[in-house]
Amino acid sequence: VRITVLAGGVGGARFLQGVRAFAAGLAGSEITAIVNTGDDVTMHGLRICPDLDSVMYTLAGAVDTERGWGREGETWRIMDELVSYGAEPTWFALGDLDIATHLVRTQMLAAGYPLSDVTAALCQRWQTGVRLLPMTDERCETHVVVAEDGGRRAIHFQEWWVRHRAGLPALDFVQIGLDSARPAAGVLEAIAAADLVLIAPSNPVVSINTILQVPGIAGALRSGPAPVIGLSPIIGGAPVRGMADACLPVLGVETSAAGVAGLYGARSAGGVLDGWLVHTGDTVQLPGLPVLARDLLMTSPEATAAMVADAARLAGR
Amino acid sequence: VRITVLAGGVGGARFLQGVRAFAAGLAGSEITAIVNTGDDVTMHGLRICPDLDSVMYTLAGAVDTERGWGREGETWRIMDELVSYGAEPTWFALGDLDIATHLVRTQMLAAGYPLSDVTAALCQRWQTGVRLLPMTDERCETHVVVAEDGGRRAIHFQEWWVRHRAGLPALDFVQIGLDSARPAAGVLEAIAAADLVLIAPSNPVVSINTILQVPGIAGALRSGPAPVIGLSPIIGGAPVRGMADACLPVLGVETSAAGVAGLYGARSAGGVLDGWLVHTGDTVQLPGLPVLARDLLMTSPEATAAMVADAARLAGR
Repeated sequence: VRITVLAGGVGGARFLQGVRAFAAGLAGSEITAIVNTGDDVTMHGLRICPDLDSVMYTLAGAVDTERGWGREGETWRIMDELVSYGAEPTWFALGDLDIATHLVRTQMLAAGYPLSDVTAALCQRWQTGVRLLPMTDERCETHVVVAEDGGRRAIHFQEWWVRHRAGLPALDFVQIGLDSARPAAGVLEAIAAADLVLIAPSNPVVSINTILQVPGIAGALRSGPAPVIGLSPIIGGAPVRGMADACLPVLGVETSAAGVAGLYGARSAGGVLDGWLVHTGDTVQLPGLPVLARDLLMTSPEATAAMVADAARLAGR
Repeated sequence: VRITVLAGGVGGARFLQGVRAFAAGLAGSEITAIVNTGDDVTMHGLRICPDLDSVMYTLAGAVDTERGWGREGETWRIMDELVSYGAEPTWFALGDLDIATHLVRTQMLAAGYPLSDVTAALCQRWQTGVRLLPMTDERCETHVVVAEDGGRRAIHFQEWWVRHRAGLPALDFVQIGLDSARPAAGVLEAIAAADLVLIAPSNPVVSINTILQVPGIAGALRSGPAPVIGLSPIIGGAPVRGMADACLPVLGVETSAAGVAGLYGARSAGGVLDGWLVHTGDTVQLPGLPVLARDLLMTSPEATAAMVADAARLAGR
């Protein structure tokens, strides 16, 4: 059984724990995660891939489970030093252990390795049990257009998300570099070879929709043989985690399970979904889209594995 | 009183503490250190300037006094991570606090700032009381030619010094990039404006002689108005610290106060020295070179300040 998952950071990481737990019961299963890299950013000369790292650390059991991101037992000595040197920016906290990951990545990228190779090299250490692929090997960065002094200004997604906690009204998202990006090595193959494609309950705008906008990926999903089942990141009108409610309105999409389903679209109507899981109590009616309501709270890998089992059932697999 | 000092790393740093203590008693004194950068190296994508950092940390009171280099209270968490990732090299220990310095430097260099500006920016934080100048803003690196499998191979000085502890027989030193290097901004001015130039008791081959080989520096010393007084790094046939005895024979120079004096040369004979301080018991006879014997053990900044006072006296200042 080959399962390919589209995933963002923290939510995607937790979901993948469930997929891995689900697949552990199946002989010869292979899981591939296609991970958003639109959040990637360079800080202090270090190339940082927050979503890839959240997934890697989580699957490795090395994540700080309380924060949901970064390394367990993390310290912040270098960050304190950078502040003492007056090195900007100071609003993006880089942990000491985490910096080692960024150093290895930055050096490998500088040496010419594509991000997919770098990611594979980093994962060698962690033995994640899931093959992690960046959505693209090319540099794409999500910027957020905000109002300023009567005009408009684009800031990096991380500045909007982390520094301003999504508190500055966003006028638009601009995916710099995305138009001309190509899927990373292995991405289209992982979609074409999948028995089941799952869309994790990640941020629908800045994670999943970013992946879907990489030229070629949505088309591969639509034309691929595998059923595509998504899980709603919105429960009862609010995101389970994160600040998707600050993102969806920017695209004119309602913050609801129905709104997100409409954003992804049913395959039969030119979208990508063959099925949609929503939380108990939420209702979605989209022509041609089978919907299953069940508990979608990822309280444990086992609970999430049961969602995956239901997703597989909805897909008819 | 303007004092300009040619200095290497640990020995140079201790010497500069003495120069600073000496100058503290003089109104309006200015100390400039011209520091060797031939030891500089890039590791894990970080630009590392061991001598500049040893001097900066020492003058800031932030050095690990036991090791003589690196930061007090240093930890090695990132290095452990790099080892876990299998990132080479693992023989060059990078401390966590130290890495912050390298991150700031690397990013400023990548942004196009010359090393002299970067050094000034780093020193802003530390308030060293001594103006630190790299000998050159250009990238120069000392390599060591060693025998291998019947042939010859050049390895970076740090690999020879740190990894092999100068234990591989050196056939030659090659200063890559030095021929075409220019003195860093401020270097020639600091020599021309000095009332006294001191040559610290640093490694005579890979620190001082490297500085003297930057095109223009030796000439500026020879034609400059300030007397140039050197202090022998060799006491009774052995280096006070470090492994100069592994370096001097490579140049065919005897490991003695006389040998080093001959290497630098008397100004009257085409060299740079106007005076030479040796340790009590050592004798040097070089035509045209006034020599003063005294205790040269840098046991404290005050003890070293007394050497500087004697150097100034020998210079007739």
